[in-house]
Amino acid sequence: MNANVSFLGGGSFGTALGIMLAKKGLCVRIWDRNKQVIDDINDKRENIKYLPKITVPYNVTGCVELTKCVLDSDFIVLSVPSHAIRNLCKQIKEHVNKNQIIVSIAKGIEEESLKRISEVIEEELPDNPVVVLSGPSHAEEVALDIPTAVVAASKDLNSAQKVQDLFLTKKFRVYTNEDIVGVEIGGAVKNIIALAAGISDGIGYGDNTKAALMTRGMSEIIRIGTKLGGKSETFSGLTGIGDLIVTCTSMHSRNRRAGILIGKGTTVEDAISQIGMVVEGIKACRAFHALKEKLNISMPITDTLYQVLFEGKDPKYGVYELMSREKKDEIYNIE
Amino acid sequence: MNANVSFLGGGSFGTALGIMLAKKGLCVRIWDRNKQVIDDINDKRENIKYLPKITVPYNVTGCVELTKCVLDSDFIVLSVPSHAIRNLCKQIKEHVNKNQIIVSIAKGIEEESLKRISEVIEEELPDNPVVVLSGPSHAEEVALDIPTAVVAASKDLNSAQKVQDLFLTKKFRVYTNEDIVGVEIGGAVKNIIALAAGISDGIGYGDNTKAALMTRGMSEIIRIGTKLGGKSETFSGLTGIGDLIVTCTSMHSRNRRAGILIGKGTTVEDAISQIGMVVEGIKACRAFHALKEKLNISMPITDTLYQVLFEGKDPKYGVYELMSREKKDEIYNIE
Repeated sequence: MNANVSFLGGGSFGTALGIMLAKKGLCVRIWDRNKQVIDDINDKRENIKYLPKITVPYNVTGCVELTKCVLDSDFIVLSVPSHAIRNLCKQIKEHVNKNQIIVSIAKGIEEESLKRISEVIEEELPDNPVVVLSGPSHAEEVALDIPTAVVAASKDLNSAQKVQDLFLTKKFRVYTNEDIVGVEIGGAVKNIIALAAGISDGIGYGDNTKAALMTRGMSEIIRIGTKLGGKSETFSGLTGIGDLIVTCTSMHSRNRRAGILIGKGTTVEDAISQIGMVVEGIKACRAFHALKEKLNISMPITDTLYQVLFEGKDPKYGVYELMSREKKDEIYNIE
Repeated sequence: MNANVSFLGGGSFGTALGIMLAKKGLCVRIWDRNKQVIDDINDKRENIKYLPKITVPYNVTGCVELTKCVLDSDFIVLSVPSHAIRNLCKQIKEHVNKNQIIVSIAKGIEEESLKRISEVIEEELPDNPVVVLSGPSHAEEVALDIPTAVVAASKDLNSAQKVQDLFLTKKFRVYTNEDIVGVEIGGAVKNIIALAAGISDGIGYGDNTKAALMTRGMSEIIRIGTKLGGKSETFSGLTGIGDLIVTCTSMHSRNRRAGILIGKGTTVEDAISQIGMVVEGIKACRAFHALKEKLNISMPITDTLYQVLFEGKDPKYGVYELMSREKKDEIYNIE
């Protein structure tokens, strides 16, 4: 495959994907608002801030000018955090053409509008096909060619297949899925559950406790996801349970690491500053808490996490409450 | 609650549950064929072989005579490995009465008959109600009062509720479920997936790889489980995905630990002997491989594991093959 690919946002996952494509021989450009990141990529062949100790091949170019970065690209990957997506789209709006496929790797929903990221992109760039790339794929492992499987989701199967062909390698498997709603909701809500799982770990609870929390968390993902129009099969797949597992159990997960700190008694602000990158689960918790209230859906883990993060509830008591809810029959009564 | 409870089999999980019930004030008896285990429980107040460093309360009594152990018990918990269940039932057959509830905590299916453990028990003790207790519950954590949630499953809801009341504590939540088929199949097949996940870890593959394997493993559980009559909701619950998660990610899991050794190049025999306890996943792999052939169901992870365990396939190549299967669309084509 021969294509030019631009990554807008030089975070860890964007950089890892860029390195992977460069190894396939493609021309890759990475833009970031932080000039130091760009200089490190160009001069030191390393993204020291976000993906240290991984060599960036010479066919990856760091760009300081956003508008030049998107020029002549076949694929534009939006690799900034979810809250920065709309503004980024506004900035490139005048410089894209309708043949360019927009790929979103951000996980979350827009806090103000409660819209999915692909909806935000479609509002700002209505003529471009949008594909979401998601699944259990820590950047640190992708960059090291560790076997990984993800999903390319789009309403337009043809565009999803183009993105599949773009990223597919022997070590990076890409499946297509037309259920973009399910893929995006799964990817966003799992960060909430990972924060809660991290808190449980930080308190010192065990693998049993975390597995119970994750099982209940899966129910929350399915409940809100199907209500919003996602397919239940999607939540059993890579972007549902697969991504939930990796995010709740791996030390690569920023959300889990932030949760561990909070479980140990660190304040939310200090936890965020210690992680040093965006913790999507915190924003997602606020957004999905608002959404569940609006849609009248039961999401007890999201509720409890909201109280811990924003209302000063003791995390230990929160997990205890979640574990001791008086429900009796598994299938019909667990919430 | 006032009840006498006998545990037949002094393994780690049986002992942990016995200790938990003793702390609730119940009279608990534990039988084991290994006299040293019984002596250690009675004299040293510790099950040194299977649950070291945990104090056994004084209202737990070790019994050397099986027939005396079941006398006057309200609940008889069968806590031996799955392959020993039928013979154990034959031994106690003449000594049980129909009011005694039989609780099974073994995970597997009988290799010769391909029957579920509760079916084996019902064949041998046809007049007794049978309840399966299962879920993400490592013995080492249960013994330490770490919050845990499990399922009591039975065709007879009333008996399931009695077992729920028996075991319920503030830290050990028990839910009932009438889908005993789904609960047993989930509990048995997850050990196969945990072995495969351990092999992936042992090879040095990452969290991404394992999450992809577990996601596909979940599909295998659902495919064979629903074919055998289990409900798909059960597989999304504690005894399905919950138990899969804990078994694939915790170092407490013998199946995972055996897999890690095999992934590092240890022979199957040496791995079993290093673990020093029964590795249920190895037996389960042989049994479910036969069952899937008989039922004509696609279970690629089970197939691959079978080849690694019994036909000398290189584990690294096996995982590679699993990851690189040429399937394109997630929902319709992943097997």
